[in-house]
Amino acid sequence: MSAGEIIGVGLGPGDPELMSVRADRLVRAARHIAYFRKAGRPGRARRIVEGMLRPDVVEIAMEYPVTTEIRLDDPAYNDCLSGFYTRITQQLAGLSRQGQDVVVLCEGDPFFYGSFMHIYTRLKDVTPISVVPAITGMSAAWTATGIPITWGDDVMSVLLGTMPVADLTRHMEQADALVVMKVGRNLAKVRQAITQSGKLDRAWLIECASMDQQRVVPLAQAGDGAVPYFSIVIVHGNGRRP
Amino acid sequence: MSAGEIIGVGLGPGDPELMSVRADRLVRAARHIAYFRKAGRPGRARRIVEGMLRPDVVEIAMEYPVTTEIRLDDPAYNDCLSGFYTRITQQLAGLSRQGQDVVVLCEGDPFFYGSFMHIYTRLKDVTPISVVPAITGMSAAWTATGIPITWGDDVMSVLLGTMPVADLTRHMEQADALVVMKVGRNLAKVRQAITQSGKLDRAWLIECASMDQQRVVPLAQAGDGAVPYFSIVIVHGNGRRP
Repeated sequence: MSAGEIIGVGLGPGDPELMSVRADRLVRAARHIAYFRKAGRPGRARRIVEGMLRPDVVEIAMEYPVTTEIRLDDPAYNDCLSGFYTRITQQLAGLSRQGQDVVVLCEGDPFFYGSFMHIYTRLKDVTPISVVPAITGMSAAWTATGIPITWGDDVMSVLLGTMPVADLTRHMEQADALVVMKVGRNLAKVRQAITQSGKLDRAWLIECASMDQQRVVPLAQAGDGAVPYFSIVIVHGNGRRP
Repeated sequence: MSAGEIIGVGLGPGDPELMSVRADRLVRAARHIAYFRKAGRPGRARRIVEGMLRPDVVEIAMEYPVTTEIRLDDPAYNDCLSGFYTRITQQLAGLSRQGQDVVVLCEGDPFFYGSFMHIYTRLKDVTPISVVPAITGMSAAWTATGIPITWGDDVMSVLLGTMPVADLTRHMEQADALVVMKVGRNLAKVRQAITQSGKLDRAWLIECASMDQQRVVPLAQAGDGAVPYFSIVIVHGNGRRP
């Protein structure tokens, strides 16, 4: 019996019509699907494919053991996650040995800050594994603003809201176009850094890009409360154009 | 009669299966399609949709008046392109006034260094116009390397091969993950900058990502000749991971 393949399928930003033709085909045909979720939640990736699955699909919910209970810089955080990835990797490898293909549902693009990468690096020398790229959340975000993100020789930098404010500011000062991912609970810090870099008047906050709950507001008017984890802040480039 | 819509449809990196479900649907249903191409060439965007079009489709080839005959920094270059965009914009606006929708085929993601942006900014206050985001060429490129591009808090910067070598080097030194677009005839310069930034041993050259002619080589072994215009150089991030 030949080994089954683990396929990390990027689902894109959330709108099921923004899945690729290949992703759509693989999801609809899959006998086994796996997806990450927080314990007790339906799972964002799983929600995107609602109504698309085979009636006899076998679902494997991979529930994160920690999300916010342990601080990111506590070594216990890393140990806990590492053990989690080892366990789910063994489960997927077991299915592969039984000749089963498994479609792993991935929000956004799997190789761009995605959780699937932790499965991929553990399995790539052990079992057949492949990746289907996808539309990133940031593409959906800049499209939602109705303004092109990069022109001519614009430099675009992608930053994380989890970075220290001084690092954020330094990178913001040097790029023409900016994307800040994982804004969530870091909104006040991100705004502070954008203000220091002199770009607040050109910054936008995008929540739930491409989804029904999509919201696009100037960052200066966004308030101080927490926003969804996958919210994105955008500063458009302004480079050469004829 | 209501005005027709101009729809900038991102086709993604080249593999037709990597088009979104929405793009696939819009392309197959379109009565009018428009696409950029160099004079005398079939056009890269047009090639992606080969075999997908209605038998009675009306095709509008928008032929660039200049590509390399005039230097980028010559004011005549800008004037020439500007006149071109004005003419094609008038043609598309005329179709819209006649109630015709027009699908404009766009390689990659329309708002990410795309030619469609020049149509979009000229028409957005004049006629109904919308954009369908797509998988970027860079997503296909990093997927082709089989190595995730960004981890944890990695900063990713997107640079252009057309930039001066000193600017390239400075940005390369400060980012964790790098994407260099429009490598083409700038390969030697890009390699010089990457070498100066100390990242040559981690750099990859990807030609024609996701297409039949796809080629992935370490940049250090890529030779000095010209490569296709849409070639991409990648340096992967190496951030925090459990």
